[in-house]
Amino acid sequence: MTLQKTTFEAEFGGEPGLGIRLACRSGAITGPTCGLAPGFVQGNLAILPKDLANDFLRFCQANPKPCPVIGVTDAGNPHVPSLGEDLDLRTDLPRYRVWRHGELVDEPTEIREYWRGDLVGFVIGCSLSFEEALMGAGLKLHYVERGLNVPMFRTNIACQPAGVFAGPMVVSMRSFKPADAIRAIQITTRFPSVHGAPVHIGLPERIGISDISKPDYGDSVPPLEGELPVFWACGVTPQSVIATVKPEFAITHAPGAMLVTDRKNVEFAIL
Amino acid sequence: MTLQKTTFEAEFGGEPGLGIRLACRSGAITGPTCGLAPGFVQGNLAILPKDLANDFLRFCQANPKPCPVIGVTDAGNPHVPSLGEDLDLRTDLPRYRVWRHGELVDEPTEIREYWRGDLVGFVIGCSLSFEEALMGAGLKLHYVERGLNVPMFRTNIACQPAGVFAGPMVVSMRSFKPADAIRAIQITTRFPSVHGAPVHIGLPERIGISDISKPDYGDSVPPLEGELPVFWACGVTPQSVIATVKPEFAITHAPGAMLVTDRKNVEFAIL
Repeated sequence: MTLQKTTFEAEFGGEPGLGIRLACRSGAITGPTCGLAPGFVQGNLAILPKDLANDFLRFCQANPKPCPVIGVTDAGNPHVPSLGEDLDLRTDLPRYRVWRHGELVDEPTEIREYWRGDLVGFVIGCSLSFEEALMGAGLKLHYVERGLNVPMFRTNIACQPAGVFAGPMVVSMRSFKPADAIRAIQITTRFPSVHGAPVHIGLPERIGISDISKPDYGDSVPPLEGELPVFWACGVTPQSVIATVKPEFAITHAPGAMLVTDRKNVEFAIL
Repeated sequence: MTLQKTTFEAEFGGEPGLGIRLACRSGAITGPTCGLAPGFVQGNLAILPKDLANDFLRFCQANPKPCPVIGVTDAGNPHVPSLGEDLDLRTDLPRYRVWRHGELVDEPTEIREYWRGDLVGFVIGCSLSFEEALMGAGLKLHYVERGLNVPMFRTNIACQPAGVFAGPMVVSMRSFKPADAIRAIQITTRFPSVHGAPVHIGLPERIGISDISKPDYGDSVPPLEGELPVFWACGVTPQSVIATVKPEFAITHAPGAMLVTDRKNVEFAIL
């Protein structure tokens, strides 16, 4: 049930968003989407029964930095035409996680058999969008260069609660030399709908992180000498909150196996 | 010859740029302009003989963060109509400093007797413009609240040399809690023509500052517990460079006794 890291870059490197979705739909792609369809927005997925979905949407609305909603479905409708003409949340991700009362019960490559008329799908923006802009500006992301996952930490920053949804913000950390950290703040400020500017810089203990080399999720990529750790609100926050709430039923994407859309990252830049 | 700190706020608090300049011209204001004509751009002054002025303009062009030129005169012409209809650099600042071969020889309240047909005046943007935006956004500036001068440091960041002009960048330091530091970076990014975004954050030793409590200019206002020092390129840089070059003749404003213009700070925001 563990997810094998395979990027399929040789086979799918040239495909746009739709091409990647079709490959997911056919079962040709079942692993991480990082590096696929460069330039296209990828999104985190959360699917909840309608009664919880209303609270969850309010939670996202109140916490736009960790939970930037870029698409919501009508109950029972698995399509999100604003993100892709024929996009189908039931088949178009490489791999899913199905949860019952907070417990992982399945990691299928499609969820047609789990789909119900009362389910609402949420697509939540992801840092891949702003990372493309960071790298395009010449900034180096250590975790990318080392082929690792971004380090993520639970913080002492409380999200604004809404209904049953509450919990701490999860942040991702990338470290830079100070002048590059300033540049990274400027660049990510341009992308408010995909986490936007950092929420913290430089003093991890102030947000409840006692050991910067021991992330709660992802890999250990501590800052190098002369660098500052910079922290962005992370799309793992809603998943972490859902795990705490233990809803009767929920579906998310499997880690790294995101929804690839037809929207371009540059469309999400406000400047 | 020392400059007395008097703000004249009671008498001149309601005056716009022109009113302050007229009061300078009449000799009614001879001290610092900080706090006067709120909302109006204030500028640093540098006056040099024409042969040096060409190199100096190239120096400023190559170093726009410490030396953001917002007005230049024709040789021998003391007016800068783009900054104020009747603005006269010879009389409209509260107090000047006259330099010969790098030595301070006079601190007059007007420079009509020193004016020459070969002099070129430079008005250089100043951090008061972006500080208004910072305070308007609710950020606290410790040095302002404590009635002190901003701490400034010579760094190990070399300016791009041009002709005879060369030297290290001088920076001003303001400290903030990390989330406010991020906000301060965003806000000052909007003001590229008045120093713009910071040049450094968080690791002062990396830019040659060994003791954050011992500034080279201004007052000691070290960061409080839980704050990061944030460093902006400072308009003292050109004065420091001129002092090193020791030109045959130069005039600057006296510290804090700036040129008050008719331009609004908000006009300098790019966003």
